[in-house]
Amino acid sequence: MERVGVGLLGYGTVGSGVGKLLRESAEEIRLATGKDVYLRRVCELPGFTHPELDPAIVTADFDDILGDAQIQIIVELIGGIHPALELQTAALKAGKNVVTANKQLISQYGSTLFDAAETTHAHLRFEASAVGAVPVVKVLRESLAAAEVKRVAGIVNGTTNYVLSAMTETGAAYDDVLKRAQQLGFAEVDPTEDVSGKDAAAKMAILASIAFHSRVTLADVEHEGITKIAAADIAHAKAFGYVIKLLGVAKLIGGAVNVRVYPALLPKEHPMAGVSGAYNAVFLESDSFDKIMLFGPGAGSVPTASAVVGDIISIVNTAPGGFVRNCTCYKSLPFFPNDDVMASFYLRMQVQDKPGVLAKITPILAEEGVSIRTVVQEGRDDSAELVMVLHPAREAAVKQALARIGALAEVQGEPGFIRVEGEDGR
Amino acid sequence: MERVGVGLLGYGTVGSGVGKLLRESAEEIRLATGKDVYLRRVCELPGFTHPELDPAIVTADFDDILGDAQIQIIVELIGGIHPALELQTAALKAGKNVVTANKQLISQYGSTLFDAAETTHAHLRFEASAVGAVPVVKVLRESLAAAEVKRVAGIVNGTTNYVLSAMTETGAAYDDVLKRAQQLGFAEVDPTEDVSGKDAAAKMAILASIAFHSRVTLADVEHEGITKIAAADIAHAKAFGYVIKLLGVAKLIGGAVNVRVYPALLPKEHPMAGVSGAYNAVFLESDSFDKIMLFGPGAGSVPTASAVVGDIISIVNTAPGGFVRNCTCYKSLPFFPNDDVMASFYLRMQVQDKPGVLAKITPILAEEGVSIRTVVQEGRDDSAELVMVLHPAREAAVKQALARIGALAEVQGEPGFIRVEGEDGR
Repeated sequence: MERVGVGLLGYGTVGSGVGKLLRESAEEIRLATGKDVYLRRVCELPGFTHPELDPAIVTADFDDILGDAQIQIIVELIGGIHPALELQTAALKAGKNVVTANKQLISQYGSTLFDAAETTHAHLRFEASAVGAVPVVKVLRESLAAAEVKRVAGIVNGTTNYVLSAMTETGAAYDDVLKRAQQLGFAEVDPTEDVSGKDAAAKMAILASIAFHSRVTLADVEHEGITKIAAADIAHAKAFGYVIKLLGVAKLIGGAVNVRVYPALLPKEHPMAGVSGAYNAVFLESDSFDKIMLFGPGAGSVPTASAVVGDIISIVNTAPGGFVRNCTCYKSLPFFPNDDVMASFYLRMQVQDKPGVLAKITPILAEEGVSIRTVVQEGRDDSAELVMVLHPAREAAVKQALARIGALAEVQGEPGFIRVEGEDGR
Repeated sequence: MERVGVGLLGYGTVGSGVGKLLRESAEEIRLATGKDVYLRRVCELPGFTHPELDPAIVTADFDDILGDAQIQIIVELIGGIHPALELQTAALKAGKNVVTANKQLISQYGSTLFDAAETTHAHLRFEASAVGAVPVVKVLRESLAAAEVKRVAGIVNGTTNYVLSAMTETGAAYDDVLKRAQQLGFAEVDPTEDVSGKDAAAKMAILASIAFHSRVTLADVEHEGITKIAAADIAHAKAFGYVIKLLGVAKLIGGAVNVRVYPALLPKEHPMAGVSGAYNAVFLESDSFDKIMLFGPGAGSVPTASAVVGDIISIVNTAPGGFVRNCTCYKSLPFFPNDDVMASFYLRMQVQDKPGVLAKITPILAEEGVSIRTVVQEGRDDSAELVMVLHPAREAAVKQALARIGALAEVQGEPGFIRVEGEDGR
């Protein structure tokens, strides 16, 4: 039986999970591929040992892996940009297939890596960089290769989904829930990457690139986080029949690409509304398959290892020349300006509780061409809370109206806004 | 560029959809496979014509397709058992790869077909036979090939999900909702296959075979339908925090396989609880990937055509020897008896509204070793409705208790029961 050697860069929690899965599922992998796929070498820091690892296959020198003719697949799990970029590039140029879970690298240097892969027709696989064990990349690249995907919406960050779910369940404030999430290990000590939406933006850049066959990098994805979401927003949303989720939304608008991350009100009947806790989901739309959603754990070392092994099997089973374009970014579509997107907004602002305030606000919206769908005003002591849901309008018009409303003497502080998504079943 | 000819058996709505997708997505398929995949011949009834089809490629003789060396893939879309079984067998034995959407055939004669495929190492793909455009088969066979799947639960019949969803939304009775569904085209004129659970059972046989690597045929899957579900059950379930869904449930219990289809109460927070209308979903569980759910249209000619083309691409991209075991049914696991499954039940029965009735029922449950979790009794004229949710118990014990309870003079008619699934997040 043909043997396929795997070289592993990094033997931390994910790496050791990959090693374990290759060992324990060796028979399943043989039956699935007709080949004997085995861990041949591990590159780790000098002096590294691990109870489950034969010291003879550990090396601190990457060249031992690159120069090993028996190694057909190199798995990079060290993370970060450098030296991962240099190692992956060298591997691909040497004709080694690469599997990685490195979303920072793929979302920022994808084109460099895919160019390197094309020089040798090596495969570059990165399922675990997007939504962990949820095989969105595979489904998009393979099952849906012939379909024109029009929209990808995702809950692609577990930390923020955990925080928003807990706020929804308990009614507690953002800061309190975040603190508790940190204590429980559901949020990092420095949660900035997650709560700012940047982590989700990297994943959406990867998913949009594959879905639309056009390069989208992290820098192309404007992102808003969840730090401004108040318990009051969650409560109002609930009363209106919505839940608040941090969404990545990638869409094709008249042949142009728009990819962003923002918190959004989602109707409670929407399939993604029930995705709670640290789980992730990606919702795909196309004329040819209607709507498909994939749900599962977006992170965690065991699911990530499972996704990496899935990629290894996929490479072994792929015919020479298959998926030659790897990321299939063969189009170069323009970007659709955020200002021109038609969006529906929810607004919340504190106003003086006296007659005539609403009469000052509504003409501004009308002048900017924005119409109101729902409005609720609640008095609180000497100020009132004004909450509105608007009909869809150009984003720039809504923002312009908000700036003018925020400048009114009767309005206290800046008006808050959250987009509304997923109406009409999207 | 290498050319791959496709022969199509049947050019109805799905077949013409496949033809259209191969034509319109030719460039995408070329980029995804590195090969030129084209419709070479169509087998249809004598005299068949179609406006989008070149008459020169239409034949009424299957041998024209079987004997064509340029045809590497035969797509069977005629449905039913005969002659589909004979045609697919002949194709596979001749070394042609086969793609089909025929769930009757795969669920009943899968082993015959896979044996035929093994003789030539041809591929047999059947994504569209399970959950339409939702790539559950691919994900199970490829992404999760190295994972041990422990449980597959699915909403795999669109008609029954539509009916139950409409009953839940409107509170209407089963018969009225079914009639309306038939008028709208969401249910067949003869809906027996759907409402009896048989269609779902065929799909679960296919999914269980792949998930557990052990042959499960339609005859192995006991199925209960939705015809006994009353508006009162939906209302009680809602009051208890559940929705009622027709579920296929396949599980590994101590190394044995149990696959069944039955209506079930599902907690409203469960990810499948939000799957409404004609949509389908499959929920997979494993220690290695935790929980993954795939959601989408389970039927419809356009999504089905999309799944067929996905399978064609997959065959073209699969390396020789890859997935040699096709269905990977290399285990021969025993079946776990239905009687011994531990299950939680909801019961509803009409009883005489007089003191002492509950005192007659509860000892019977206790004697059979079944304990009560919740009980609600509502008086209605001279009879009362008694509703209970039981703690998990052996099915046989619950059924025995039900038979004894049904024989009580104070109980009118047969007590109704529905299983409770998806507690503790499953």
